[in-house]
Amino acid sequence: MYCYSKFTLAPSATIGGGTVGGGVYELLTRRISSPLACIKKICVRDLQKTRDFTVDPTCTLTDSLDDVLNDETLNCIVEVMGGTGIAKDVVLRALSSGKHVVTANKALIAEHLGEIQKAIGEAEGSPSFAYEAAVCGAIPIINTLQSCYSGDNITSVMGICNGTTNFMLCKMEDGADYGEVLKEAQDLGFAEADPTADVEGHDVRAKISILAKLAYGVTVPITSIPTTGISSITSVDFEYAKSMNCTIKLIGTAARTSEHGEHDGPLTVYVAPKMVPTSHVMGGVGGAGNAVAVTSANMGLAAYTGPGAGRYPTANSIVADVMRIANGNQGPAFPKTASLKLSTDYESSFYIRISISDGLGIIKSVGACAESSGVSISQILQNAINDREAVDFCVTTEIALLSQVKMFVEELKKLSFVKKEVMFMPIMEE
Amino acid sequence: MYCYSKFTLAPSATIGGGTVGGGVYELLTRRISSPLACIKKICVRDLQKTRDFTVDPTCTLTDSLDDVLNDETLNCIVEVMGGTGIAKDVVLRALSSGKHVVTANKALIAEHLGEIQKAIGEAEGSPSFAYEAAVCGAIPIINTLQSCYSGDNITSVMGICNGTTNFMLCKMEDGADYGEVLKEAQDLGFAEADPTADVEGHDVRAKISILAKLAYGVTVPITSIPTTGISSITSVDFEYAKSMNCTIKLIGTAARTSEHGEHDGPLTVYVAPKMVPTSHVMGGVGGAGNAVAVTSANMGLAAYTGPGAGRYPTANSIVADVMRIANGNQGPAFPKTASLKLSTDYESSFYIRISISDGLGIIKSVGACAESSGVSISQILQNAINDREAVDFCVTTEIALLSQVKMFVEELKKLSFVKKEVMFMPIMEE
Ligand SMILES: NC(=O)c1ccc[n+]([C@@H]2O[C@H](COP(=O)([O-])OP(=O)(O)OC[C@H]3O[C@@H](n4cnc5c(N)ncnc54)[C@H](OP(=O)(O)O)[C@@H]3O)[C@@H](O)[C@H]2O)c1
Ligand SMILES: NC(=O)c1ccc[n+]([C@@H]2O[C@H](COP(=O)([O-])OP(=O)(O)OC[C@H]3O[C@@H](n4cnc5c(N)ncnc54)[C@H](OP(=O)(O)O)[C@@H]3O)[C@@H](O)[C@H]2O)c1
Repeated sequence: MYCYSKFTLAPSATIGGGTVGGGVYELLTRRISSPLACIKKICVRDLQKTRDFTVDPTCTLTDSLDDVLNDETLNCIVEVMGGTGIAKDVVLRALSSGKHVVTANKALIAEHLGEIQKAIGEAEGSPSFAYEAAVCGAIPIINTLQSCYSGDNITSVMGICNGTTNFMLCKMEDGADYGEVLKEAQDLGFAEADPTADVEGHDVRAKISILAKLAYGVTVPITSIPTTGISSITSVDFEYAKSMNCTIKLIGTAARTSEHGEHDGPLTVYVAPKMVPTSHVMGGVGGAGNAVAVTSANMGLAAYTGPGAGRYPTANSIVADVMRIANGNQGPAFPKTASLKLSTDYESSFYIRISISDGLGIIKSVGACAESSGVSISQILQNAINDREAVDFCVTTEIALLSQVKMFVEELKKLSFVKKEVMFMPIMEE
Repeated sequence: MYCYSKFTLAPSATIGGGTVGGGVYELLTRRISSPLACIKKICVRDLQKTRDFTVDPTCTLTDSLDDVLNDETLNCIVEVMGGTGIAKDVVLRALSSGKHVVTANKALIAEHLGEIQKAIGEAEGSPSFAYEAAVCGAIPIINTLQSCYSGDNITSVMGICNGTTNFMLCKMEDGADYGEVLKEAQDLGFAEADPTADVEGHDVRAKISILAKLAYGVTVPITSIPTTGISSITSVDFEYAKSMNCTIKLIGTAARTSEHGEHDGPLTVYVAPKMVPTSHVMGGVGGAGNAVAVTSANMGLAAYTGPGAGRYPTANSIVADVMRIANGNQGPAFPKTASLKLSTDYESSFYIRISISDGLGIIKSVGACAESSGVSISQILQNAINDREAVDFCVTTEIALLSQVKMFVEELKKLSFVKKEVMFMPIMEE
C-alpha cells in the first residue's frame, strides 16, 4: 500500500492510448516533463495499431492489464479506456492496491459511485481518485465544486454538458432539421454511429448525477433521474423560443425545491431540454461548448464555460489531476456526504406546445384543464396560422410541479381538437 | 514555526471585522462550524463600534495587532483590513512567524509581490498564502490558474474585474451619461467617494498583474502597466459600439504577442476599455458582475463569471481558502516562475473615434496618416450628422501595435479639420 505524502513522485501508467490517452501522454511528456509525473506504461487493446503520437523509449506499450496493475513501481493509474465493464475492474483493483486513479469515465463513476467510494477508503493514507475530465472536459467544475463551496449552500447546479447535442440544437436554431443535423454531427465525428447516449440525454444524466453528488453530497441512482432528450424538438419550438427571447438547450439540473421556504425542500435531479433566455449566460453557449451554472446562497450565480470534449481539453484536465496528486494537493474525491430527500417531481415554469385543429372555445377549454390540474397559465402564444387544420400554439405556465404539468397535458389530450403529442419543457429563470 | 501537515487544526484570527471580516466570521461560525477551522480572535480598529454580526463568547474582539500576531496558538491569519501600509506588516510578520495567511487585499499583493514571496519561503514546511478573494471576489480564478493549467500554455487572460466600472458602463450603454452614473454608483455604495482607483483602472491593474503572475509566472511591476480608465468614454462611443454589434467593457489583459509565430512574443499587460462583441461571453456580463476569459493551447477559450465583490461572495472565497489550508490541500501561492520579455506595446485591432469639422478630402487624409503609421484601416463608420461643425466618425483597424496606433493618432491630430481629443481603444476578437 502506497502511503500518501506531499510531493510524491508519481510514476504513472495510462490504460488506454486513444484520443484522450494519447493527449495525456503528449502533454505530460512534451509540455510538462516534470520528474514528479511521468508515464512509464501505456496499456492498449491492440499493440499493432498505429498510434497518432510518438512513444518514447522510456515508456512501454503493453496490452496486458496485469502488467500495469501488478506493477508496484507505478502509483498512479490513468484510466482512459472507457466503458463500465473492464474499466470498473481496473479502477477498483488499482484503488484497492493503493494506487491513485485519474479517470475521464463519467459513465463508470455515475453507475458505480458507491463501490468506488468504498475502494478509495477514508483513512489518511488513502489513494486519491480524481476525475476532473469526466464532466465538461476542460471546465474545472469538479475541483471548483470540491473546494470552492465549502462554506456555501448551493441551490441549483445546471449544466450544458454534452457538446454533441448543443451543437445540434445550435444548428436547429439556425433552421436545420433534426435528422439533417444529426447526420452532420456524425459526419464531423461529434456524434457516435449510435447517438442514443447523447440525444436521449443519458450522457448528461451521468454527468449531472456526479455534479449532484459534489454539490449536495447525495448519491442519486441514475435510473431514478427523469431524462428527456432532444429528439422531439422541432423547428416550431425554436420559433416560439425566439418570440420568447429564448433558445433551447439540453440541461442537466440538480436543484433544491422550495417546500416551506426558499430551496429547503427535496433535491430534484433531472435532464430535459429547456427554454433558456438568450440573455442568460447558458443561452450564449454555442457549438460544442459546455457550461455549468451554479447558484448559491453566498455567490448568487456563477458560471463556468469552455470546451466539453476533444483530445487536449480532456487531457488537460487529466494532467492537472495528475499534477495535483504528484504535488500532494488533491483533496477528497467526494468531500460532502449528506442525506437529503429526493424527489422526481421538480418545479419550474413550463412551455407547452399544443397542436390543434383550429376552432372556437379552445382557450376556454385549455384554461379549464389548467385549472383542474392546479397550473397557472402565464402566457399563450400563437405563431402565424398557415393551415387551419394544423395549428399550434404554446402555453407558458407559472412555477408548477412536473406532476401538475403532466396532469394538465393528460387533460389536454382528452380534448377533441388537440392533435398528436403534446410537447412540454421547463423554462429557465432569467 | 508551525509545521505544515495534512489536516491541521487551524485556529485562526481575522484582522478586520468589517464588510468582509464579518462575513468570514459568520460563514465559518454559522455555516461550517468545523473543528478544523475556527476564529479565535477578531482584530478591529475601534472596539466601541457596533458590529453587524454577533461575536460568540469563544471569540475575542481585540484592537491590538500584537495580541493576534504574537499569539502562538493561532496558525492562520485572515487579513481583511485593507490598505498597503499596516496590512503589509501584518502579512509579512504573520508569514515569517510561520502562520498561514489568507487575504482579500489585491493592492497589497500587486504592490509587494516580491517581498510576500520571500516571506512565504519555498521549503516544504512553509506557510500557505491564499488570496482567492483578492481578484474577482467569488470567482475561483486564482485556484483555477494555480492548478488547472499546469500542462497548458496560456495565450491570454482577460478580466472584467471591477464591478463598479462594469455597472457604470452598463448604465451608459442604456443611455445614462458618465457623471450621472458615477453619482448613482456612489449613492448605491458601489463607488467610493474618491472613485479614482475604480474609474481610472488602478484596481483592475492590480488584479491583472496578479493574474499575469499566475498565468505566466512573471512579476509585472504595476507602474509599468499601461492603464486607461473609462472617463473619456461618451455616448457616441456606445452608438458606434452598437453599430459594430459590440459593447464597451473595462478589461485587464495579459497576453503573449505574436513575434515569429503565434503567441511566442513578449508578454503585454494592460488595462483599457475595449470594444467587446455582444456575442462574446465577456460582452454579456451585466451590472456589477465580473468575468475572466482564459485562452490557452489545450482548452481554447474558457470563461468564468460571477459576482466580483460584496460581503458573502468575498467571504466565501476566503472561507474556501481557510478550509483548503485546514485540510492540507492548499498548493503553492505562485506555482509558476518564468522569465518572459515584457512589452508595453500591445497588439490588437483598434477603434478610433475622430471629431472633425466636415469637409472634403477627409478620408483621403486619414488614409494617408494610417499608411504612414503602418496601420491598415478595416472599416470607417459615421453616424448620422446633425451639426456639420461637430461631426464624428470612427475608424477600425486591422491588428496593429499600440505604438503604430499612437503614431496614427498623432498624425491625425496634425490635420486641420480634426478637433479635440482623438479617442481610441482596442477591439476584442470574437
Ligand atoms: N474523447 C473525448 O473527447 C472525451 C471527453 C471526455 C471524456 N472522455 C472519456 O475518456 C475515455 C476514453 O475516451 P477516448 O475518446 O480516448 O476513447 P478511444 O479513443 O476509443 O480510446 C480508448 C483506448 O482504450 C484502449 N482499450 C480499450 N479497451 C481496452 C482493453 N480491454 N485493454 C486495454 N486497452 C483498451 C484502446 O486501445 P486501442 O487503441 O488498441 O484500441 C484505446 O487506446 C472514455 O471514458 C470517454 O468517455 C472522452
Ligand atoms: N468589500 C468587498 O466587497 C471586497 C471585495 C474584495 C476584496 N475586498 C478587500 O477586502 C479588504 C477589506 O475590505 P472591507 O470591505 O471588509 O473593508 P471595511 O469594511 O472597511 O473593513 C476593514 C476592517 O479593518 C479594520 N481595521 C482597519 N484598520 C485597522 C487597524 N489598523 N487595526 C485593526 N483593524 C483595522 C476595521 O476596523 P473598524 O471596523 O473598527 O473600523 C474594519 O473592521 C480590503 O483589502 C478590500 O480591498 C473587499
